[in-house]
This record gives sequence, C-alpha cells and structure tokens, in this order.
Amino acid sequence: MDLSLYNKIFENRLRLQIMSILMANEFYDFSSLKELLDATDGNLASNLKTLEKEGYLTVEKSFVDRKPNTRYMKTDKGRKAFENHLIALENLIKQQYK
Amino acid sequence: MDLSLYNKIFENRLRLQIMSILMANEFYDFSSLKELLDATDGNLASNLKTLEKEGYLTVEKSFVDRKPNTRYMKTDKGRKAFENHLIALENLIKQQYK
Repeated sequence: MDLSLYNKIFENRLRLQIMSILMANEFYDFSSLKELLDATDGNLASNLKTLEKEGYLTVEKSFVDRKPNTRYMKTDKGRKAFENHLIALENLIKQQYK
Repeated sequence: MDLSLYNKIFENRLRLQIMSILMANEFYDFSSLKELLDATDGNLASNLKTLEKEGYLTVEKSFVDRKPNTRYMKTDKGRKAFENHLIALENLIKQQYK
C-alpha cells in the first residue's frame, strides 16, 4: 500500500476543505470560507495559518469599501502537495476495490 | 462539498492504513502489522487502542507455539465507518476533477 504521498498537513478535515476550495478558485476571502465551511473564526484562522506557514497558500490583505478584506490563494507548492495527497487517497481507495 | 462522512478517527495515516489492511484481511497480528507498516511498537499499539475504543476492531490474544500472539479483526461498525470515510474521500477527489 503506497501512501508515501500522504501528507500529514492535510489530515485535518478543515485544511483538506480549505485547500480543495482554493484548488477550484483563484482566491477566496476569509468571510466566505467561514460561511462555506461553517467554521469558527479561531479554528479557521489557525488552520489557514498552518497552511500559510507550510507555504501552501499566500495571504493578501486589502480594503474593500473601507472594510478590511483578507483573501487567500494557493501557491504552486500547495497545489502540487495537494495533488500528491489526492493521489495517495486515490491509491488507498483503489486498494479497497482490488 | 459534502464531507459529512469524513471521520476524524481515520485522519491519522497509521489508523487509515491499519483499517485498510483489516478490510482486506479477516485478521492480522501485531507483528505483521508492525512489519508491514514500519511503525514503532508504541505508535502502533496506541493507534490500535484508539480504533478498539471506538469499537472499530476487536482484539484476540492467544498463544502460538507458546508465544503470545495478538491479532486484530475489524468489527461491522468499523467496516461501515471505514466505507463511509472512503465515500467522503471519493467525494473530495471527484470535486477536484469536476
């Protein structure tokens, strides 16, 4: 069973979901992520920070209508890491139906 | 993105692997799991205990050639939980290729 591409950073469900959203969207802002994932501010911020520290996403802070707006984008490193993780998950699933 | 079946018990890679092995085999003993997964005694035992406490596997202790032998079997509850978790992972993967 080859799970060498399994990535501990993506073990957490919320991080898995954040990354999945960032794969499908060029960027996503904090409030929209929060709403979509039904997460608390603290839990979401902490997991975004983990992904940022790992170099999997970048943060862009700006003002929209004078209100602070924080949005997130995946990096190339993040995209590659997530794709690899999905390969590991696919291998695991295939294993079950052999 | 429906990850409602995502199961935090299976977030851990080692627990995912243990359960995957127990899905494919009627039973598996501690030493063989250890060898196959290249895990330490402590880490393996601790994660097996988590799965046992959750009711996902049962433990059977016996003697083989006068040596203690501990083997593990999935329960119906464990099988069902793991199948559901795989559905969640499949949904996540499909989402990526939409």
